[in-house]
Amino acid sequence: MIVETQTVRFDSISLDGGATLAPVDVAYETYGQLNAQKSNAILVLHAFSGDAHAAGIGPENGKPGWWDNMIGSGKGFDTNKYFVICANVLGGCRGTTGPSSINPATGCPYAMSFPVITIGDIVRLQKMLVDWMGIPKLLAVTGGSMGGMQALEWAVSFPDRVVSAIPIACTTRHSAQQIAFNEVGRQAVMADPDWNAGNYYGGQPPARGLAVARMVGHITYMSDDSMRAKFGRRLRGKDTFTYAFDDVDFEVESYLRYRGGRFVNRFDANSYLYITKAMDYFDLTSGHRSLAAAFENVTARFLVISFSSDWLYPSYQSQEIVRVLRSRNCDVAYVELPSDYGHDSFLVDVAEQAELVRGFLASTFEKIA
Amino acid sequence: MIVETQTVRFDSISLDGGATLAPVDVAYETYGQLNAQKSNAILVLHAFSGDAHAAGIGPENGKPGWWDNMIGSGKGFDTNKYFVICANVLGGCRGTTGPSSINPATGCPYAMSFPVITIGDIVRLQKMLVDWMGIPKLLAVTGGSMGGMQALEWAVSFPDRVVSAIPIACTTRHSAQQIAFNEVGRQAVMADPDWNAGNYYGGQPPARGLAVARMVGHITYMSDDSMRAKFGRRLRGKDTFTYAFDDVDFEVESYLRYRGGRFVNRFDANSYLYITKAMDYFDLTSGHRSLAAAFENVTARFLVISFSSDWLYPSYQSQEIVRVLRSRNCDVAYVELPSDYGHDSFLVDVAEQAELVRGFLASTFEKIA
Repeated sequence: MIVETQTVRFDSISLDGGATLAPVDVAYETYGQLNAQKSNAILVLHAFSGDAHAAGIGPENGKPGWWDNMIGSGKGFDTNKYFVICANVLGGCRGTTGPSSINPATGCPYAMSFPVITIGDIVRLQKMLVDWMGIPKLLAVTGGSMGGMQALEWAVSFPDRVVSAIPIACTTRHSAQQIAFNEVGRQAVMADPDWNAGNYYGGQPPARGLAVARMVGHITYMSDDSMRAKFGRRLRGKDTFTYAFDDVDFEVESYLRYRGGRFVNRFDANSYLYITKAMDYFDLTSGHRSLAAAFENVTARFLVISFSSDWLYPSYQSQEIVRVLRSRNCDVAYVELPSDYGHDSFLVDVAEQAELVRGFLASTFEKIA
Repeated sequence: MIVETQTVRFDSISLDGGATLAPVDVAYETYGQLNAQKSNAILVLHAFSGDAHAAGIGPENGKPGWWDNMIGSGKGFDTNKYFVICANVLGGCRGTTGPSSINPATGCPYAMSFPVITIGDIVRLQKMLVDWMGIPKLLAVTGGSMGGMQALEWAVSFPDRVVSAIPIACTTRHSAQQIAFNEVGRQAVMADPDWNAGNYYGGQPPARGLAVARMVGHITYMSDDSMRAKFGRRLRGKDTFTYAFDDVDFEVESYLRYRGGRFVNRFDANSYLYITKAMDYFDLTSGHRSLAAAFENVTARFLVISFSSDWLYPSYQSQEIVRVLRSRNCDVAYVELPSDYGHDSFLVDVAEQAELVRGFLASTFEKIA
């Protein structure tokens, strides 16, 4: 099924940092049909490097969406029953306004004059999209990693607009280690002279720095076990070490270089900086006395999912969400799924996740029917 | 106690890759006195970025050695009883011949014409030093991380020269994840245009790339818990986010930039490439049917130590060493020390480690007396 990304333009958005963006575009896709009561809409929220193309086949490159194994006819998010929406995040580079967009005031890309954004800003722009679609209440908000943070932000900021939330492999705030990994990525980008303080549009982008940043990311997305299973110590295209430095020795080296190099073709380096900062700034507690206080007005029911081998967003972070929601007597189910795939599990090891989501959505839909 | 690094020059060394280095210098320090029987010598082997200055105060900068908390009068390696030796590794940049040394054939630094080296080469050069000192048998070989790999290599390659071995927080071969982290560091160095294919001596070194590489390293040396305790989400010199990109927000960011920047002043980028490659190549099994076969002629007694929060060299890697040594009926003791400091534990959380070492050395020394 070919799905084309669409775009809607809004006049402006006011940001947490005080700035205003005008206009602001949102790239989005939808799958399935909105029912007459407009009660079957699910907002799917993408992770750091994702985009609006969550499912179906893209007309440009013929590639399936990033959660195509979860969204579709008969799948976890069953498009025969539900109307699924996915939008590229604010600050992104895949159709929604971001640093690579043209600043109408100058006629040039914003680059580093783009205002700093937050997960709150990202979610407020999504709400403008949902309002524009005329959907009064979302049956579910869901996503993994940064997508899960957005789901939490939705449930807290717009409690009367969310029936349920499924935050997956995420946290209410980054730990020092999570900030550190993001900071290394940013430093790698900014260390590349081609970054040129963000002014590389129309020229050579900071490809080497961005590739290094992505390589660090990939290691953190996998697990020790999944890397052992996939690569071990296997050599690349040879039987023995060549003792030459210009050469790849191990398959894992070749893989990282390949993934790093490929990322450069689809992602904007300045978006890398802005979006990782938004993740690091995110703290669901901020502006509240405590996490429990932040959840005070939450009415959504929750399905919280984490993965046993995810060391980037370890289960203890999901368990904190569950503990505090339970302490507020919220309706919350929690599952730690056994998987060897590390943080990537929510994208690649989805069989059990799909079953959990299917059941949770069915019971949620029943409750409001 | 001021300790000056000394240097000895050997005519040449033949390397595993087939090349010969001539001449070759070794920088070393010694602490305590060699006894008349020459039976109290302990060879301490440094980790990736260490040097010969393991203990005492350096005359140049007044700084204590990297294991000064373990080596000295009354300490774990008690210099009242033992004669402790530490040498900078081959390929290093702190006195021992490495890529930044002058190639006598050209009068210029070797740079990337330096031959690829292995942990085996590093250890063979150490043996030349020990031979030159006239020491027939080492009471102990010991070190953490890459130092532990060298201790294992010593016990396997020169079984009749080693009474005991204390490999700490190490492995018999790098996993795919460990290779991957090293590869990201190398790619960060080589992505810096100032690296210039290794020809930066006399000019601007690849400071930004090397700093990024070091930042990645520092994250892997710490633990999630120790980073939380040390930094948490504390902001750096401000009470709230400034929403400006040229600024440091979190303390952990400031720390990483500081450590990355400082490393550049004391470490050579090409040494970074060569030594990480030597670690990745290292596989104690290679040339043998199995790890058990590699240990076939080992006569040393072992004290193997790992740390509970070390996720870079996880305990399962030390436990494999212990399991195989035991299967060969070797004399091996194993302790997993509880510590929150991650891989850095062997350098910073040494109270229990020192006690273990003290007892193990005393009983070893008794056995040969």
